[in-house]
Amino acid sequence: MSAKQYSEDHRVVYYETNVTGTVGIGRLVDLMMLASEDQSKQLGVTNEKIAKRGLGWVVTQHIIDITRLPQADDVITLSTIAKSYNRFFCYRDFKVEDQHGNELVKMHSVFVLMDRQKRKIVRLPVDIITPYEAEYTKRIERLKTPQSVENISGQKNYRVRFMDIDANHHVNNVHYFDWMLDALSSDFLLNHRLTKMNISYRQEVYYGDQITSEVELDEKNLTTKHLITTGDQQNCLAECQWEKIK
Amino acid sequence: MSAKQYSEDHRVVYYETNVTGTVGIGRLVDLMMLASEDQSKQLGVTNEKIAKRGLGWVVTQHIIDITRLPQADDVITLSTIAKSYNRFFCYRDFKVEDQHGNELVKMHSVFVLMDRQKRKIVRLPVDIITPYEAEYTKRIERLKTPQSVENISGQKNYRVRFMDIDANHHVNNVHYFDWMLDALSSDFLLNHRLTKMNISYRQEVYYGDQITSEVELDEKNLTTKHLITTGDQQNCLAECQWEKIK
Repeated sequence: MSAKQYSEDHRVVYYETNVTGTVGIGRLVDLMMLASEDQSKQLGVTNEKIAKRGLGWVVTQHIIDITRLPQADDVITLSTIAKSYNRFFCYRDFKVEDQHGNELVKMHSVFVLMDRQKRKIVRLPVDIITPYEAEYTKRIERLKTPQSVENISGQKNYRVRFMDIDANHHVNNVHYFDWMLDALSSDFLLNHRLTKMNISYRQEVYYGDQITSEVELDEKNLTTKHLITTGDQQNCLAECQWEKIK
Repeated sequence: MSAKQYSEDHRVVYYETNVTGTVGIGRLVDLMMLASEDQSKQLGVTNEKIAKRGLGWVVTQHIIDITRLPQADDVITLSTIAKSYNRFFCYRDFKVEDQHGNELVKMHSVFVLMDRQKRKIVRLPVDIITPYEAEYTKRIERLKTPQSVENISGQKNYRVRFMDIDANHHVNNVHYFDWMLDALSSDFLLNHRLTKMNISYRQEVYYGDQITSEVELDEKNLTTKHLITTGDQQNCLAECQWEKIK
């Protein structure tokens, strides 16, 4: 039995793009997450149903490979599959293709189910996971954890705004990505292209929090390390690989 | 001859909503602007074509009436019509309806064409305006100008971020609205519903600018005045009418 795949199309519009003419990676992750929500709806295991049991899906890590970021007027196909799961973790694969079937972006993500009251991870209930027809495995994937920033090349501070919180009462994904990348100079962002990103979520941030975004740039290897903190708390870590735009 | 109307549908998704469960007004304005861009494309007067002549459309004012802001999973219809124009101004009407034809939002907007190099307003060229079949009128509309903030009830500072700039090299609409409304307390925003907004753009803000958002709240009449400044420069003004949520 192989897991169920789900696909949907999306027309990229101007306000989803930034000054580079492409969709920001944070917005693209939003779009991929939307595909997974839509699959859950189709299979009858909606967020609302899960919320009624006091539970909620939480992403702990995304590993992203970027061939090309879509541009305005691209009609992209977002595909997702809940590939496998073990007692606590569900592994999902995502794919973004352009209208000619060229692969633009791939993403591998780790989901857990959280008891919203106790803020603790729970064992995946059979009736919630079965509809996806994901493969059960005892194996826990050992994914590379992003390393923390050691030598700070840049730092910016942000305050979590009212509009940053979505209807699920979480700071929307896109803001973590924006805080991380905005800590780099515009000169760097205009002249380099993101090719890989490994992002790991540790601890949620909340409305009104003062957050710090630190970045370490290795100019030789064109890699960056990113860290989001609130006081002593590490909230989110990432490593990125870049390529110079000719 | 009556002006050409254009409509398109849009499915509202979770990441377009905020903690109130509805689409933020800034995002909704983005969606309406998208409808006007799509009409321009359909009529063969694209932004690219206009940019080649060194020109660009700029909005100077929006007057918005809100019956209800759409929620996630609403399929809304965005309609627009370039109603009339005079030598320098083009007046557009917008409408947002839900899937049952209920009117959710109305907007009346003023557009001008800007010489991008000289940063000056130009006379509307016949070949650019004709395709919309808008009515020519000598009359210049006397729209109410939002009054400036006098007694500051709240103030927050923002820095224009890299991701705030869209592919047209402008700070995207949504950010002006977010800066203005975020200056209000979350308590106010959670317990009141925006019913009217009159927003007037004076001077663009740019990447890296430090902006200040001031708000004056009249608790008796449930009105707010908003002002965005960079140093001594007034960039954007707005007046809002609110209603208490029961």
